[in-house]
Amino acid sequence: MEKKQRKYSVFLGNVGACADRYCARYSAPFGTAELFDRVATVPQIGAVDLVATPQLLADRDIVTQKRKEHNLTVVSIAADTFSQARWQQGSLSAPKRETRMEALAHVDEVVNFCREQNCPMLTLWLGQDGYDYLFQSDYLAAHNDLTDALRCICQKYPDITVALEYKIKEPRTHNYISTVGMAALLCKEVAMKNCKVILDFGHALLGYENPAESVAILKRSGDLLCHIHINDNYRLWDDDMIVGSVHTLEYLEFFYWLRRTGYSGWMTIDQFPYREDGRDAVAESAAWLDDLESKIDSLNFDQVESILKEKNAVKSSQFMRELLRS
Amino acid sequence: MEKKQRKYSVFLGNVGACADRYCARYSAPFGTAELFDRVATVPQIGAVDLVATPQLLADRDIVTQKRKEHNLTVVSIAADTFSQARWQQGSLSAPKRETRMEALAHVDEVVNFCREQNCPMLTLWLGQDGYDYLFQSDYLAAHNDLTDALRCICQKYPDITVALEYKIKEPRTHNYISTVGMAALLCKEVAMKNCKVILDFGHALLGYENPAESVAILKRSGDLLCHIHINDNYRLWDDDMIVGSVHTLEYLEFFYWLRRTGYSGWMTIDQFPYREDGRDAVAESAAWLDDLESKIDSLNFDQVESILKEKNAVKSSQFMRELLRS
Amino acid sequence: MEKKQRKYSVFLGNVGACADRYCARYSAPFGTAELFDRVATVPQIGAVDLVATPQLLADRDIVTQKRKEHNLTVVSIAADTFSQARWQQGSLSAPKRETRMEALAHVDEVVNFCREQNCPMLTLWLGQDGYDYLFQSDYLAAHNDLTDALRCICQKYPDITVALEYKIKEPRTHNYISTVGMAALLCKEVAMKNCKVILDFGHALLGYENPAESVAILKRSGDLLCHIHINDNYRLWDDDMIVGSVHTLEYLEFFYWLRRTGYSGWMTIDQFPYREDGRDAVAESAAWLDDLESKIDSLNFDQVESILKEKNAVKSSQFMRELLRS
Amino acid sequence: MEKKQRKYSVFLGNVGACADRYCARYSAPFGTAELFDRVATVPQIGAVDLVATPQLLADRDIVTQKRKEHNLTVVSIAADTFSQARWQQGSLSAPKRETRMEALAHVDEVVNFCREQNCPMLTLWLGQDGYDYLFQSDYLAAHNDLTDALRCICQKYPDITVALEYKIKEPRTHNYISTVGMAALLCKEVAMKNCKVILDFGHALLGYENPAESVAILKRSGDLLCHIHINDNYRLWDDDMIVGSVHTLEYLEFFYWLRRTGYSGWMTIDQFPYREDGRDAVAESAAWLDDLESKIDSLNFDQVESILKEKNAVKSSQFMRELLRS
Repeated sequence: MEKKQRKYSVFLGNVGACADRYCARYSAPFGTAELFDRVATVPQIGAVDLVATPQLLADRDIVTQKRKEHNLTVVSIAADTFSQARWQQGSLSAPKRETRMEALAHVDEVVNFCREQNCPMLTLWLGQDGYDYLFQSDYLAAHNDLTDALRCICQKYPDITVALEYKIKEPRTHNYISTVGMAALLCKEVAMKNCKVILDFGHALLGYENPAESVAILKRSGDLLCHIHINDNYRLWDDDMIVGSVHTLEYLEFFYWLRRTGYSGWMTIDQFPYREDGRDAVAESAAWLDDLESKIDSLNFDQVESILKEKNAVKSSQFMRELLRS
Repeated sequence: MEKKQRKYSVFLGNVGACADRYCARYSAPFGTAELFDRVATVPQIGAVDLVATPQLLADRDIVTQKRKEHNLTVVSIAADTFSQARWQQGSLSAPKRETRMEALAHVDEVVNFCREQNCPMLTLWLGQDGYDYLFQSDYLAAHNDLTDALRCICQKYPDITVALEYKIKEPRTHNYISTVGMAALLCKEVAMKNCKVILDFGHALLGYENPAESVAILKRSGDLLCHIHINDNYRLWDDDMIVGSVHTLEYLEFFYWLRRTGYSGWMTIDQFPYREDGRDAVAESAAWLDDLESKIDSLNFDQVESILKEKNAVKSSQFMRELLRS
Repeated sequence: MEKKQRKYSVFLGNVGACADRYCARYSAPFGTAELFDRVATVPQIGAVDLVATPQLLADRDIVTQKRKEHNLTVVSIAADTFSQARWQQGSLSAPKRETRMEALAHVDEVVNFCREQNCPMLTLWLGQDGYDYLFQSDYLAAHNDLTDALRCICQKYPDITVALEYKIKEPRTHNYISTVGMAALLCKEVAMKNCKVILDFGHALLGYENPAESVAILKRSGDLLCHIHINDNYRLWDDDMIVGSVHTLEYLEFFYWLRRTGYSGWMTIDQFPYREDGRDAVAESAAWLDDLESKIDSLNFDQVESILKEKNAVKSSQFMRELLRS
Repeated sequence: MEKKQRKYSVFLGNVGACADRYCARYSAPFGTAELFDRVATVPQIGAVDLVATPQLLADRDIVTQKRKEHNLTVVSIAADTFSQARWQQGSLSAPKRETRMEALAHVDEVVNFCREQNCPMLTLWLGQDGYDYLFQSDYLAAHNDLTDALRCICQKYPDITVALEYKIKEPRTHNYISTVGMAALLCKEVAMKNCKVILDFGHALLGYENPAESVAILKRSGDLLCHIHINDNYRLWDDDMIVGSVHTLEYLEFFYWLRRTGYSGWMTIDQFPYREDGRDAVAESAAWLDDLESKIDSLNFDQVESILKEKNAVKSSQFMRELLRS
């Protein structure tokens, strides 16, 4: 098979500085223009994903200018439903109606920003929509409100792909849109064609999913996969590490299934390089992605499918061993 | 609130002997008749769940006689799709068509047994239907075959509730019907009224679900909850321990949500008392269940709902603290 | 048994505001004086633990004044080896000698602060001393440097208890002082009488320890337990939640073993009330602690010991069930 | 660097049949002679490890004959302290003195068998020595009894390496010799030169250890590493899968640290090929081991050490990426 074109994007902030709950600043911050300039130094990256923070919205002209200067596509813009204290008990699922209305207003603002940037996709990662404690949430009310709000958004912006990103926990101890199954189920309930799912490779691992199987599940459930976030971790927490720095074979199976199911979208690097230079960490991830995808470029797909149909672990192991040596 | 009637069942084998992968026999085995006699000594238990092993099918007359003798209802019968080597690469999702046909034939046999025992529910816990290794399974084919087989079963036996029990892993490292979301999604795809879900409390914990939320999710997704298995564990493995021996507050929230959603079915003790006397371990679980449910009997449901709607963790904590003291 | 005197402390910052990696500020911050005033409103709290951040060191006169005003003991002061970017590759184990020297200088500053506050204990939680990636650390060098630095500290300040707090991960994906076994082993290597261990209840759970057994292990290894941090979590992450809001029986066994081994030190509430009022969350934890300890006050210790010596799980379960009802 | 000689062994039973707690027999069993013949067909395997089950002890003449016939070294013999019901509440730490005496008698029998087979190492994997429930164990008594018994064994058989294998859980929910830290601490307490540690790669992963760091820890703590068991898993359970079928980079770092610390012992394949042909699964593991070790053969050790001393994650990632391509 010939080399497939790479479509790698990155979250703009990834080339900047990080905080964790102990250390507010591991390195000096960068301005929006600088972040774009830093992204542009990584040759494999052709696009960015944005988060609609107050700062970024204030810098919208810089965004427009810089993406044009560097010829970067804006793949998606994420509503900022997680970094502000006002969403601390949820955004689209908040128990107070006025908070939910506020969240819808923010979504409207973000959709306008999307249209302005020729960006067809709204990312919804509802990190505060969940709960921490037992007896803290009225699950029926919360799931109902969330479903209603999503349906309303999908109906209001039919030109926009509403992309739901699932994650089982963090920052809440329990998030509502938790697993691939819950995300697909939610899409079925929303029942709108533009309601789709983002698979974050690290989130899938965190939920003890096998990312490759999650790709297949989303394919079967109505071609729901619209976008991918990529990073690595040790399976027990969303460590958001450099792609390929922990897992190897899981990525290879994942890339195989993306091709098998005809995925043609972008893959967005989404990591937290707390102690690394953000730009260099992104460049490393891009290099890993290209290396790992190259192994898939050379695969004989008929042969793989016949191995899978045998369901013989020894042959699977042999196949992987040879793939690594290729 | 007055004391709600308890409906506790037990898997017949639970009062017997156990094996693990190292030790084939922790204690001497019991015959079918003896197992019934042992169940009958636990006063809170009014029913049994059965597994249609070759031995049990051979003992069907003993089953009929003993359940009548002890006035025990048969709540459900589980197809034996997990204890026999022939299902080692799956039963209803096996890659070989002949194995899938064999599994359907076994289901037919079990449904007949159900009808003979006035049992309205077929339990399907498809423990071998999954995979262990990367590049070992054709996920699309497997999920398709599984869905087709389930639809076929639901159509063929409209008088029987086909109860799917989910579990994220074990004995495979990855099982197909893995989480509450996947189980509900599967029911939507099967699209038959008699396709329902069993929630195993321990399996929910193992998948980092909060069992109480899973109850609410199944309620919302079409009143899918038809049965409950109950046991305890340390959240990282399906330890199948005595109910209440590890968790406390999780059970209380779970029982609250069962009542809140109007669950009226049975609760079946399902544990592996490797080193304990099985009968005594079941009696302990029944005593715990009754103790814990008693705390819910006395709850003011309006007050609980108003606490939940506040979503204030400190008040939730206070409520739980007082509930424990009650 | 008569009611044992409670000795509850709290980390001063716990009654204030929190951040996580997404949200820099869940609520408005409080000044040092205010924090003390807030602590003083929780009647069960008789002491504070401090972290020697630059801000707190600048406020040392306020500390002196306020602890006297409110009659609060300072139980321990933690070196700030985790909130500053300069320690991002480690403090006492940093690969660069000059960083290790800087860390020793900071320890000296903290010890002086301890003495000034009549505080006999230096807390060392070396959150940045570990690694994130494979092939990122020279383990031999790092463990050697760490051991040498600790021995040097213990020798230099014989009047101060040097209290090592272990945690398996976070903020690094792997921390060097990871488990109760590693902490005790390190003490044996340091071989100084004032080198002791802090058990954080949540950290023990995170490392799949049973906190009660960890107490016994530290007792056996030279009476190493010098201090306790207390909070709750779901076992898979250091959620730092309100004490007793998740676990119940684990606390009871833990308190039993603290008494059994003659622990007479303080218990310091150490939580991250992201979305809660910090003061109220601390008050809740104190109320839980008192409630749970009350159950232990009434225990017949001879009876417990005879149950433990039987090692019969059914009897253990029965005992716990009755203890909860007491 | 030239290719280092491989020293691969296998547990004899690994080429045979497996059970799990649901399925007593995934395939037909093999006799002792057959097992040896099957091992002999894997060219990279030069030795076996044995478990002193009643069956194997009865077949001791076959062992002698077959190991000679196939020129196989016996690397270690494990006492069977886990597959028999009599040890269900522990062997060397059992609460009943008579059980502990029985366990010592069994050890004596195994040591005699070792001497007969020219085997210098007694493997002690005390899988039943732990507990399942809270309030089920008198930790002080159990750890004391265990330590005393081990010291007694080490003193009685000074010509034998007493090799302790740690594992955090299973078959108990909590095992006493749980982590690398606990194992090293125990060796310090036993304080006998022939008391050493076995590192099982999968057990280390299960305890959230990084196996490479565990090698360094054992080196520092008195050159304690005497033997290695090798297999793979998904980090959350001891899945005992084919080596290299899940992890890649972790093995490479592990092999690097084995050479860095001068390990010269054997590496024993220890897996549970439930659904695979055991012999073929072992052959696959041996092939993976050789492939992965070949990458280490070609390493420039000075270069690696200088990368480690920099502690720069981007450079570590780059190094691993290039190593995979080599």
